[in-house]
Amino acid sequence: MSTLSNSRNIFWQECPVGKHERQKLLNQKGCVVWITGLSGSGKSTLACSLSRELYSRGKLSYVLDGDNLRHGLNRDLGFKPEDRTENIRRVGEVGKLFAEAGLICIASLISPYRKDRDACRTMLSDPNFIEVFMNMPLELCEERDAKGLYKLARAGKIKGFTGIDDPYEPPVNCEIEIQQTGGFCPTPGAMAGQVVSYLENKGFLQYQ
Amino acid sequence: MSTLSNSRNIFWQECPVGKHERQKLLNQKGCVVWITGLSGSGKSTLACSLSRELYSRGKLSYVLDGDNLRHGLNRDLGFKPEDRTENIRRVGEVGKLFAEAGLICIASLISPYRKDRDACRTMLSDPNFIEVFMNMPLELCEERDAKGLYKLARAGKIKGFTGIDDPYEPPVNCEIEIQQTGGFCPTPGAMAGQVVSYLENKGFLQYQ
Repeated sequence: MSTLSNSRNIFWQECPVGKHERQKLLNQKGCVVWITGLSGSGKSTLACSLSRELYSRGKLSYVLDGDNLRHGLNRDLGFKPEDRTENIRRVGEVGKLFAEAGLICIASLISPYRKDRDACRTMLSDPNFIEVFMNMPLELCEERDAKGLYKLARAGKIKGFTGIDDPYEPPVNCEIEIQQTGGFCPTPGAMAGQVVSYLENKGFLQYQ
Repeated sequence: MSTLSNSRNIFWQECPVGKHERQKLLNQKGCVVWITGLSGSGKSTLACSLSRELYSRGKLSYVLDGDNLRHGLNRDLGFKPEDRTENIRRVGEVGKLFAEAGLICIASLISPYRKDRDACRTMLSDPNFIEVFMNMPLELCEERDAKGLYKLARAGKIKGFTGIDDPYEPPVNCEIEIQQTGGFCPTPGAMAGQVVSYLENKGFLQYQ
């Protein structure tokens, strides 16, 4: 019997085909690559490039894009602090399911608060949560402003915009940091390569 | 720009690796097999048996079990009607993501209300939502009572229990119906076989 307050009489159902079998079928290890950073820092670009690179190696990944999920699973949530926390909790839970299913799940969300990201890390067993910090200067993100959101935020037309009037808390112990070198941004392929190397070294791209 | 009330300034992110590529990699078509029926009707048994049978054919499936999800993604939800609806909506949304990822997603939930199931059907494009109705007599389910829940419900210790003091609305146009023949319940293998045949005939077990 469950002891959870909202989950009376809920039993845990085990299945004979488990994570092990699915990982064997896919010849990879399930995990969550969690990409965090400011709007315009290149999260989606990395997510796409990474999924392409993994696909070229015959590996199955799936991108959970924060913006896309707000049209579906998280459509009932807004941008109040508690809604942001719930938004990230749900993405973490879904990421966990995808990792359980054996996929390399690529979550791409601003996820500005450290405690929310750490809660997702705790959900998964630690080595299966790979935090990638897009460490790009605010000025660069604002200059790109592909979605025109910084402009709106500066004009006061969007309130609580991360980096402008809401804080971004950089990770303390992330697994991977993407940053400029010599004033240049890495190419999408180079960023993906950095993550793929990590996954390869840690044994996620095969399964014995 | 989005027109959703809660989703201001949310853009849709497209990725070059899409459903097509993932289905090609897996040589199958993503879909949701939605198993509905009373507690004790054999939903979890079918889900496990089906995932085993698909695995033996080299197909990737993942079971979304209603009870298990109440420990994670849906841990904030109770059993009030609006919570049940939200519970099923979220499972539908997650099932949709898994189908998008190319998996055969097996959702196993009592899901007693027709409108909630139909909302999930609408989320997916129709042929990718396969409703399986465990059409077992209440007496049989109550006799099995593997979890001891009917006893508690009859004793009034659980309120709003489906089949006792809360309605189960059987599907009107389900794709597959599992029932007794000549007073005998089909074996787990026979039930799984019925679903696998359907999937095979509809072309879900390969991808050209």
